[in-house]
Amino acid sequence: MFKSCWCLCLSAGLSAAKLLKASGLDPVVLEARDRVGGRTFTVQNKEAKWVDLGGAYIGPTQNRILRLAKEYGIKTYKVNEQENLVHYVNGKSYPFNGSFPPMWNPITLMDFNNLFRTMDKMGEEIPREAPWRAPHAEEWDKMTMQELFEKLCWTRTARRFATLFVNVNVTSEPHEVSALWFLWYVKQCGGIMRIFSTTNGGQERKFVGGANQVSQCMARELGDRVKLQSPVYRIDQTGDVVVVETVDKQTYKAKYVIVATPPALNLKMHFNPELPPLRNQLINRVPMGSVIKCMVYYRENFWRKKGYCGSMVIEEEGAPIGLTLDDTKPDGTVPCIMGFILAPFKCRKLSSLSKEERLRRICEIYSKVLGTDEALHPVHYEEKNWCEEEYSGGCYTAYFPPGILTQFGRVLREPVGKLYFAGTETATEWSGYMEGAVQAGERAAREVMCAMGKLQPNQIWQPEPDNDEIRALPFVTTFWERNLPSVDGFLKFLGVSTFLSAAAAAGLVAYKKGIIPRS
Amino acid sequence: MFKSCWCLCLSAGLSAAKLLKASGLDPVVLEARDRVGGRTFTVQNKEAKWVDLGGAYIGPTQNRILRLAKEYGIKTYKVNEQENLVHYVNGKSYPFNGSFPPMWNPITLMDFNNLFRTMDKMGEEIPREAPWRAPHAEEWDKMTMQELFEKLCWTRTARRFATLFVNVNVTSEPHEVSALWFLWYVKQCGGIMRIFSTTNGGQERKFVGGANQVSQCMARELGDRVKLQSPVYRIDQTGDVVVVETVDKQTYKAKYVIVATPPALNLKMHFNPELPPLRNQLINRVPMGSVIKCMVYYRENFWRKKGYCGSMVIEEEGAPIGLTLDDTKPDGTVPCIMGFILAPFKCRKLSSLSKEERLRRICEIYSKVLGTDEALHPVHYEEKNWCEEEYSGGCYTAYFPPGILTQFGRVLREPVGKLYFAGTETATEWSGYMEGAVQAGERAAREVMCAMGKLQPNQIWQPEPDNDEIRALPFVTTFWERNLPSVDGFLKFLGVSTFLSAAAAAGLVAYKKGIIPRS
Repeated sequence: MFKSCWCLCLSAGLSAAKLLKASGLDPVVLEARDRVGGRTFTVQNKEAKWVDLGGAYIGPTQNRILRLAKEYGIKTYKVNEQENLVHYVNGKSYPFNGSFPPMWNPITLMDFNNLFRTMDKMGEEIPREAPWRAPHAEEWDKMTMQELFEKLCWTRTARRFATLFVNVNVTSEPHEVSALWFLWYVKQCGGIMRIFSTTNGGQERKFVGGANQVSQCMARELGDRVKLQSPVYRIDQTGDVVVVETVDKQTYKAKYVIVATPPALNLKMHFNPELPPLRNQLINRVPMGSVIKCMVYYRENFWRKKGYCGSMVIEEEGAPIGLTLDDTKPDGTVPCIMGFILAPFKCRKLSSLSKEERLRRICEIYSKVLGTDEALHPVHYEEKNWCEEEYSGGCYTAYFPPGILTQFGRVLREPVGKLYFAGTETATEWSGYMEGAVQAGERAAREVMCAMGKLQPNQIWQPEPDNDEIRALPFVTTFWERNLPSVDGFLKFLGVSTFLSAAAAAGLVAYKKGIIPRS
Repeated sequence: MFKSCWCLCLSAGLSAAKLLKASGLDPVVLEARDRVGGRTFTVQNKEAKWVDLGGAYIGPTQNRILRLAKEYGIKTYKVNEQENLVHYVNGKSYPFNGSFPPMWNPITLMDFNNLFRTMDKMGEEIPREAPWRAPHAEEWDKMTMQELFEKLCWTRTARRFATLFVNVNVTSEPHEVSALWFLWYVKQCGGIMRIFSTTNGGQERKFVGGANQVSQCMARELGDRVKLQSPVYRIDQTGDVVVVETVDKQTYKAKYVIVATPPALNLKMHFNPELPPLRNQLINRVPMGSVIKCMVYYRENFWRKKGYCGSMVIEEEGAPIGLTLDDTKPDGTVPCIMGFILAPFKCRKLSSLSKEERLRRICEIYSKVLGTDEALHPVHYEEKNWCEEEYSGGCYTAYFPPGILTQFGRVLREPVGKLYFAGTETATEWSGYMEGAVQAGERAAREVMCAMGKLQPNQIWQPEPDNDEIRALPFVTTFWERNLPSVDGFLKFLGVSTFLSAAAAAGLVAYKKGIIPRS
């Protein structure tokens, strides 16, 4: 088989192939699994109708994936956020509205406000396409997020919530990730508010019928160019064409190859010649996060009756789940709550239990948070432990431990001979999301076209026009959010003003006692 | 082909196979490269006679590798340390004797002494076979060594030397590694003095003729059981026997398999069934260090004439090399200095230069440190960049970033069905060294024999008798090394004594002035 180009796995590989085909080329897609979609995985059954066991959420500013969905006529719907969200902390439930739980203690409020404002400000310094070029790149990359939180936060409350913020966004722990990398990650998703919000943020919507449809539609369009159950184990580019061998004992030949796996899965392939030293070591250094996605189904949407929308932000060491969202179907049928078991510690602890026991513990915490026994009586349960997937390595995305981004980041998408690299990890907008996969796949396809002389280098990176239906609203900050001091600043201010008042009082006393001469 | 057991690559695989064969079994060794020895690699040529481009040093307490060498009649010789070592810092050379450069500033001395004493003390708390069970495991694993140094060190001098200490021992940076892991690593090598010393430590000796001979002798003994150029890409244990497929399109069948690669290289194989979640994620999380080993050859042993033994400890940001040792042949011929380019930053910077330019920069720093232009005139140069090796991933060994050892460490050598795990990373004594490879290989072989009912579980782990020629001497600490306060303690003491003297002086004044009544 001789093809002009070929690609591996996932939405990035498919969107690369789709663009190549549209440009008149003849790509082949080699997919390791028996299905397309990679980290998106929709299952259909009687109980759940359809359920996204993997990537599911989309929102405004994710214009590329929305463009693809629109092309295929896949509709989106809003995740329910009509009623109150609920924040569970110190064993109590606090209903709230908006993206973040409000803080009532003024010191905590200052601390929170300063933390998130500072993270966004640090993010502004970081170039999304080259975070290693940030003015403080070296300093921030040597630090874990835990160290940064220790420096920035004065209160235990803020530090604890900040930990959950890292857990939820990148399925790893603050002490595992480089501060530079995490600040970059939040920045390239549009900042603290955009990444964490449901309404107007990354979790605003889901696809009616499941997220996998986008990949399925692309695969259908590509027809028998997509080869399932074809894990690549060897890539030889010593000859005129690249020779690719798969575990099912097929050999493919191509002029160019796009490798669209998470960086670490490049290790599944034996390369001839060997990869250059920096890439050889990079792919060893960027682990995938840890998450188990759990869907609990109920007879009734009991939480809405109690005034809760189904979003829970759960801070408790022993709680299996850290964040939930309503996962009921858009027509109100199949009431369901989706929850994440986040980061290695909880994934490890919960993995060792039986499925029944896991479900029982999840229902228990839901019952506590929502304050009703109804949560104890599920009618169905679906779960997916992404830590066990050989051809993902984990989910949602790769993280960078301290020191890696500045030393190895620059080769993340640097071509190696006739190999080009896609995968959501190589994206510069919504990397880690479906949107990033599409950006990366299309960019890699245009790199190949450029190498073939069909495009100019300045055409490789293309901005995406805003979606005309799902529009991003700006996040308006209040005067206080912009100007409230940090706890640090407040204490300094208190110190100065105490000193000044003390000095003034002393002066008054001195004046009254005649120590200061009345001229 | 149907064999009772088979193994992959490296000294660990070979020593496993050797023991299995000696026990009457019929192992096959599948080696990815066209040579045996893995991270040991001896090259012979006219200029160098023979040169170890990879692992080379052995010392007292490394009794297993010494036993194998003795069996094959491979002699050892002492690395030259007769003359002075030299410590280069702030642009000046300071000759010294002993394992560590002496400190003259009393504050720095206290700081150094306290740092290394504390690291050894922390190490005592860490079980070598289960570091995750240390009383402070969680706390120390969340910290990088850089954080620990910031907590322990008062002086910049101590912090800078401590950084070099990490660079030299594990070819990575203090901000990259978990404190728990690094403290464990030093501990299981016998502590600060044992790991860092030449005389009486890990670098005391080399093998006459090169380190690779041990593997070569084992391979010779195993005969055509060793298959070179046979990288494994698939392991299927869904049937009664394990089926193994290699890139050269051979299929092997075995009752048991020992995988003797660095953990990350398990990713080179496609597993059926998939690995369990914890192992699947572990192998994604333990990168290999970064090092380029450089041998510069000279006409003459000029350093010895100047009173230097050839060991240089070089602290300078711009210096390519961090540590050197005399690499002259035991008979005094082929004068040579061996130096390491350590950790990602320097490896990356130096890799981008031409070989000639790299050599020029190395000679320049040697000339500065040794204070002579003779260092500028090499007659030959050998180097090996281990970052480029696909089937090592880096050298010397795998490191654990923060958070990994406590969450994933316990599956490092946990069998998966009929797969057993060797490789120096799975050892509990001198892990990271040739000694660790032998310990791991023999332990894995005995695990297989135990599974076959030929051994009892309590026979799997076997202590090794002390070598009767190369004996370990205890490191004697002085009264001051044991009792010198830390800078912290000293300052507190100063504070108390200043307070006491001030109080005494004030009392005296008060007494003299008659404020305290003379009763």
